[in-house]
Amino acid sequence: MTSTEPPADECPIARAMSCVGEWWSILILRDAFLGLTRFDEFQKSLGIASNILARRLKHMTEIGLLERRPYSQRPPRYDYVLTARGRDFFPVVGAMLAWGNRHLAPEGPSVVLAARDSGRPFDPVVLDGPSLTPITLDAVMLVAGPGASAAMIERLNSIKASRPTTLSTGPGA
Amino acid sequence: MTSTEPPADECPIARAMSCVGEWWSILILRDAFLGLTRFDEFQKSLGIASNILARRLKHMTEIGLLERRPYSQRPPRYDYVLTARGRDFFPVVGAMLAWGNRHLAPEGPSVVLAARDSGRPFDPVVLDGPSLTPITLDAVMLVAGPGASAAMIERLNSIKASRPTTLSTGPGA
Repeated sequence: MTSTEPPADECPIARAMSCVGEWWSILILRDAFLGLTRFDEFQKSLGIASNILARRLKHMTEIGLLERRPYSQRPPRYDYVLTARGRDFFPVVGAMLAWGNRHLAPEGPSVVLAARDSGRPFDPVVLDGPSLTPITLDAVMLVAGPGASAAMIERLNSIKASRPTTLSTGPGA
Repeated sequence: MTSTEPPADECPIARAMSCVGEWWSILILRDAFLGLTRFDEFQKSLGIASNILARRLKHMTEIGLLERRPYSQRPPRYDYVLTARGRDFFPVVGAMLAWGNRHLAPEGPSVVLAARDSGRPFDPVVLDGPSLTPITLDAVMLVAGPGASAAMIERLNSIKASRPTTLSTGPGA
């Protein structure tokens, strides 16, 4: 470890999480993926307090996951519609669903993903697009990208140096 | 929508999220993926209060994401080592990292995944394993699995019936 830590928000995972914000946001996204668009639909589905739901929807609109579209002038009412950025989070949720089904559904999955055209069940996996290499902890290392600060580069180097020893204490996947 | 809602924890996404628990857990997992195993290492990396970190590590050990291994008897000290279940969450975090890099790194990614053997950068995507179909919102529907309750089956049917109309209001991906 180094004494100079990179800024917390430089990490793309921390940044993604600070964008999605909290668990409610992922459940709101999940419901938006299911086709819900209206305040009372989200509220009914989630059983969430109005003020919390309003704050979440406002935040998710500001950061560009949802877009607000008026469907009534009097009273003013809006549909909350997924943006391209919001829709692109779907694969992350799909990978999370697959993990939940593998590890947390001893009675068998209650929900699975399937092809919309054929109905054939999908088995979501995370792969490197060009080579189709599975993205697993053992196959992957982290490297600095073009936007990395000096502190981030130093930290990634220190990880690389320390990692093999630490890894050998871990269980097999 | 139906009047009979399935139990909230039947959804594999809600279940995964309730397992991982809160944002701190994902950042702890991230650091565990980087090879950190000790209380003070996590604390230094995350700048998190001791009591919160202790609670999180306890929870993550109880639900089987981490395993506690003593490395000192006096004082009693432990390594927190990833289990197979914890390691299997790595692809989810990899997909989240890719999303963060695509949408939240206008200055260019600071961290990217790369092949451990060759150093070639990876581009994580979520695909159906057998057919390699991309898991996108447009290609996918939800179907009841063998563990679905009657309420869940009814809800999935009501979603299927209402979805096409709702979808047409959404923007292109």
